[in-house]
Parts: sequence; structure tokens; C-alpha cells
Amino acid sequence: MKILIAGVDGYLGWALAQHLAARGHDVGGIDNFFRRRWVAEMGSCSALPIASMPERISAFARTFDKQLSFWNLDLRSFDDVREILKSWSPQAIVHLGECPSAPYSMIDAEHAIFTQTNNVASTLTLLFAMRDVCPEAHLVKLGTMGEYGTPNVPIAEGFFEIEYRGRTDRMPFPKNAGSWYHWSKVHDSNNVMFACGLWKLRATDVMQGVVFGTRAADAAPKEHMSTRLDFDQAFGTAINRFCCQAVIGHPLTVYGGGGQRRTFLPLRDSMQCLTIALENPPEPGEYRVFNQFESVHDLLSLAHMVRAAARELGISVEIISLDNPRVERENHYYQPERRRLTDLGYRPSCDLRTELKTALVDLTPCRATIEKYKQVLLPDIRWDGVRSF
Amino acid sequence: MKILIAGVDGYLGWALAQHLAARGHDVGGIDNFFRRRWVAEMGSCSALPIASMPERISAFARTFDKQLSFWNLDLRSFDDVREILKSWSPQAIVHLGECPSAPYSMIDAEHAIFTQTNNVASTLTLLFAMRDVCPEAHLVKLGTMGEYGTPNVPIAEGFFEIEYRGRTDRMPFPKNAGSWYHWSKVHDSNNVMFACGLWKLRATDVMQGVVFGTRAADAAPKEHMSTRLDFDQAFGTAINRFCCQAVIGHPLTVYGGGGQRRTFLPLRDSMQCLTIALENPPEPGEYRVFNQFESVHDLLSLAHMVRAAARELGISVEIISLDNPRVERENHYYQPERRRLTDLGYRPSCDLRTELKTALVDLTPCRATIEKYKQVLLPDIRWDGVRSF
Repeated sequence: MKILIAGVDGYLGWALAQHLAARGHDVGGIDNFFRRRWVAEMGSCSALPIASMPERISAFARTFDKQLSFWNLDLRSFDDVREILKSWSPQAIVHLGECPSAPYSMIDAEHAIFTQTNNVASTLTLLFAMRDVCPEAHLVKLGTMGEYGTPNVPIAEGFFEIEYRGRTDRMPFPKNAGSWYHWSKVHDSNNVMFACGLWKLRATDVMQGVVFGTRAADAAPKEHMSTRLDFDQAFGTAINRFCCQAVIGHPLTVYGGGGQRRTFLPLRDSMQCLTIALENPPEPGEYRVFNQFESVHDLLSLAHMVRAAARELGISVEIISLDNPRVERENHYYQPERRRLTDLGYRPSCDLRTELKTALVDLTPCRATIEKYKQVLLPDIRWDGVRSF
Repeated sequence: MKILIAGVDGYLGWALAQHLAARGHDVGGIDNFFRRRWVAEMGSCSALPIASMPERISAFARTFDKQLSFWNLDLRSFDDVREILKSWSPQAIVHLGECPSAPYSMIDAEHAIFTQTNNVASTLTLLFAMRDVCPEAHLVKLGTMGEYGTPNVPIAEGFFEIEYRGRTDRMPFPKNAGSWYHWSKVHDSNNVMFACGLWKLRATDVMQGVVFGTRAADAAPKEHMSTRLDFDQAFGTAINRFCCQAVIGHPLTVYGGGGQRRTFLPLRDSMQCLTIALENPPEPGEYRVFNQFESVHDLLSLAHMVRAAARELGISVEIISLDNPRVERENHYYQPERRRLTDLGYRPSCDLRTELKTALVDLTPCRATIEKYKQVLLPDIRWDGVRSF
């Protein structure tokens, strides 16, 4: 299949390009290296050393004996995006090309407005370009489990039957996001749903849990093939940050009481799930939602698991609680449903403990980088708008 | 009360400035005249002759013996908006400063992206500026009943109790809008709801029906005090367009079968309801939703009512059905709830027939203008993306 990845230079994008190529697909990618710029703006860089795109493209060709078609492009450039779809004719498009950080969007008005307008405009651009050029193609758009918030009822996969005043309807499950970023993803989900009804596009909207881990496959990546892994407060996610803290002996920083329950999945399971979605496309006009995660944990338990895994490697770290910079419930009901991916064959690929140990081993050679930038491990972006530093 | 109106030069904004001033409030306004530019872009102009802003400000001062504070400004200019809030210290802000047209947003990618990013950025700008400067002020933000779509259950006022898998929660009523514009309003509603929870702002989100009519008060407006009234396919709304068609003897153009049911309210009732919201503010941190309309009608019945009102004035017009340019259900259940405004004292101010006759009388002197631009009465913006002309 010809699959175009928007955001191919990112954490998921670069791993996915390899995973799909290994399965025999033809892969194209768009990126304008915003992620590298945003992480630099946070005063940080990837813990795992990453190659430049020319190096990545050469390594890709050596590894898979085929070219990665690449365009250095802002996704908001409608005419250019349309031209690419016209000339390359993808059968599927994976939309990972968004600003993915809740804390980044909470910095100030400028960052909130950038995150929302950038993400909304990128998605609308892709939708209009697909309508014009390849309405038969399958859009796999990355959402987040964070769109749902933490309701007091189980979280359906996108839609549910409701009864109200004695009548019934199948309706979108209400969203209740917790940051300007998460709301931007809700806006996008709504726009994609509308486009599918309007123009009979087909889309899979992936409500993904928090991804962690250093590897998309069993083997360690070859030279220039490693994907990025961030550890700063904005672009590093919970488990990855704990692992980076552990390898330099820094206390694992839990926000507040750590009772916040969230969904998680290893990077390799994210690859597996996205591939299942791609290889089992929906019907034209169908907008389907997958809740994509492996397991549910609270953050304090995860910190304990990282500490235990580190101890097995001879590293001793403590766990500390930081004043929670976010506005969120720390003790709450949380029961998200996940059936659709399991029905299509998703099986968790490994246990969490093994994955954590692999990540710690892979990150150990990166200690100097993490040490150098370690001030970014502590949060100073506060949801209530008061900077603590 | 000191009340700032964003979008004070528009159909609702200019009428509201007068209505509030007549009730003794101090009124300030922001506008950058986008509406005049968009209507010109559609090849049209207001049917009712409207004065320039300097003329309007002078007439306002003569009528109410007080100044209208006015700033010519793009609402997306964060620093400027913050300065205005700082210097003028409003106690309430009415946010009418958005691109309000479904067809305009459906023209092409550029117009869709403009409508969504402009509206989202304007609202975020106001929210952040309020947080920084006047978190105690009351935001009255204009939404639309169109955010809800046409579900098969009654439409709650913003929130409802749901039961799912044996558990219950109070959740936002799911939205299902029918144009990029309507979705932009959903995005804004979500953002306002989030800001109220996050920063303890207080807001009333007004899900308003389709407004019609030429007058905000019983008496005809004085010189330079008339509000605009549009009749083009993009910025003219159903009843106003029918009235403009009637006064020049043009057939009343119903889209499709005309069974589409919508909520409506006369301009003067919109003023009454917005005033009720302003004079009965919510608590800090409260995000409340009002469904704001007077009655529910299908479009074909409205066309018949306009025809009957026109006949009483000696004008005979036919009703024709046009191939529906929109993607929408033409026969559907529709039962929106409205209790909160009634509980606060809203009483419909007049009957529809009287209001229609007043509009026809007021528009009769404008026949030459409508005749001159009458090609804009016919729709060529299609929801399926194919221009029919």
C-alpha cells in the first residue's frame, strides 16, 4: 500500500515509516521539522540521538532497499499538499503532523492560539486536499484518549446509544479535554467526522493513550534509524520522563498525589495498532473511532514500576511528589472501553516491565545528554497561568 | 454596567449597543469592519442603508447623550485587546466578533480555514485577555443552535444527565454541526467551557436560533441608527432573505423540500435575551448555556408566512424549491428545550406575523438596492463542493 505519513520526522512518525516499510508498504512523508524546533524552544533535545532527515533517508534506503519519498513542507500549505497527493497518489494518509504537547499549549495565549490554529488548519488542509485529489484514500488521524477527560461513566469508542426524555439516538461520546492542546484534538476529531459525512471520506480516528518506549521493534535500531525520545516537561510523556530521570539518578517526579489514571501503550504497540487500522480500512463515508491503548495505570504506580525496573539494573532512585502544575482530578473513576482493535487482532506485544527495562537500557548511553539538559525535567508551565519559576 | 461588545458594527452588535444604552448601560465596542468586507466579497451590501462608524458614533451620542467608546481593531490582536480591557474595565463582554456564515465557510479550503482559525483565535484572545485583566467580568459568547444539529432526542440546554453501562454523569450535550462555520462555534463553546473550569471565568454561552427582522425596538431607527440587514446567500439568513425577495417580487427560494426545522427569534427578542443574560450574570467559574429562540418552524411554513404577510401589503410572490445546496436532513425530529431564559423572565415580545410585516414595510424603501444586487439571492455555494454556477 502507498502510505503517506504527515509528521514523519516525529516520535511516532519515524518509527511508523520503518514499521510500515518492513511490512512491505511504500512510504512517503511530510515534515517541516517543527518538533525539533519546539523541543529546542523548551531548551531541550531528544535523549536518543537522532539523525538529520538526509541521514535518515539514506539509512532508510540502505535498510529497506527502497526510497522514502520526503517533502519538507508546512502542512498548512494547501496548494503544496494537494500537489503531493496528486503526484504521489497515496492510498492512505496517517496524520501525525500536529503540535502534540499539552504543557506547550498552556504556556501563554500565543502558544495556545498557535497550537489550536496550527492543528485545526493542518487537518482541514489535509481534508480538503483529500476531497479534491484522493477521496477514496483512508485517513488515519491521531487523536488522544485525553479528548475524553475523566468522566464518571465508562468511555465508549467514539459513539454511544443515549436515551434522553424517552427517546434514543446514537451520538458522539461527549469530550471533556484538559488542555488547549487536547481541545485542539477534539476540534480536529469533530472536523474529520464532519468531512466523512459531508464528502464520504473514510477515516479512522485513533484515540491513543500515552505512548512510551524507545523501540518500535525487538531489535535495537540501526545507525540513523532511532526515533526521538523527549524528556522535557512539554514534549516528554510520563513514562519516558520517568525513565530519563531514572538513568541519571534523578528523583521520579510525580505531579500531585499521582492518583491520576491514564491509558498507556508501548511504542511498538502503537505501531501494531496503526498498522491494523491501515490494513483494515473503513468503508467510504465511514468515520470510526478506535480507543488505542494497552493498559490503564495511575501515575504513582508507574513511577514505582520504573523504580523497580531501575533497581534491577542497579540504579536506585526515589519518587517525589511535585505540586501539580496541571488542573486535573487526582482521584477519579476511569474505565475506557477498547474492543475494536482487539476484534481486528491487536494483541499486546510485551509486558510493561520488559518494555521499561529495555527503555532504561537504551537510555543509559544517553545519560550525558539528559544530565546536560536536566533542568527541563522539572515543570514550570502551570495550568492556572502562574509560572512557578 | 460597563459592557464591551466585540463585533459592534454587525447586525446584532449595532442593535445591542443601542438597546443597552437605552437601558442605561455604558457601552464600548470593538470592530474591524470584517463583516462589511465579507458581504462586499459576496458581491452584496446591506439592504437597509447603514452609516459609517463615525456617523454611527455621532448619532449614538445625539440619541443617548453618552459616548460609545469604539476601537477599530482585529480581535486576534492579543496585546491590543488586553490594553482595552485594562483601560476601559468592562464588567461584561459580549462576544459577537466572529465570522457568522455557514455558506461562506463552505466556499473552499481557504474560507473554511479562515472561518475556523479566525473564530477560534478571536475567542482564545478574549479568554486569555480576560484571565489576565478582568477575570471577574462576565463573558456572553454567541453560539448557535446549529451546533447541536438535528438529533433524534430533545436538545438539552448544554448539559444533560446520562446513564451509560449502569453509571451516571452530567455531561456536555453532544454537538453535531452542519458546516465548518457551525463547527467553529462548537470549538469556541468547548474552549469557553474549558476556560471557565480552568481560570474560574464566568460565561453565558448563548445557543441562538436564526435571528430575523429589521428592528431592535418598536420605533423605527433614527438617522444613522439602523442596523444592517443582509440578503446574500452567505450572510443573509432565511427569513430576512425571504423578506428581501418578497419586496422585489422575487420568488421565495426554499432549499429542497423545506421540511428543515430550525429555531428562530426576532431581532428584538435577541436583544431582550442577551440583556437578560447580562443583567443576571452567573457565578465565578460557572459556564452556563442558554438555548435562545422564540419558536420552531420548518422553512416551507416560514416561506408561506412571508408570502401571506406580503399579500396583505399587496405584494404577490410565489414560492419555489431550489435543489438544496446544503447537506442536511429535510425531514427530521427536532425538539430543542428552552427553560433557562424563560425562568429569568424572557417573554416573546411580538407575534411572528407582525414582525414579518414590519420587516416588509421597512425593506420596501430598499427595493432598488435589493434589485441591484439580486443575483446574490440565489445560492451557488454547495456543501458537496461542486459549484452549480
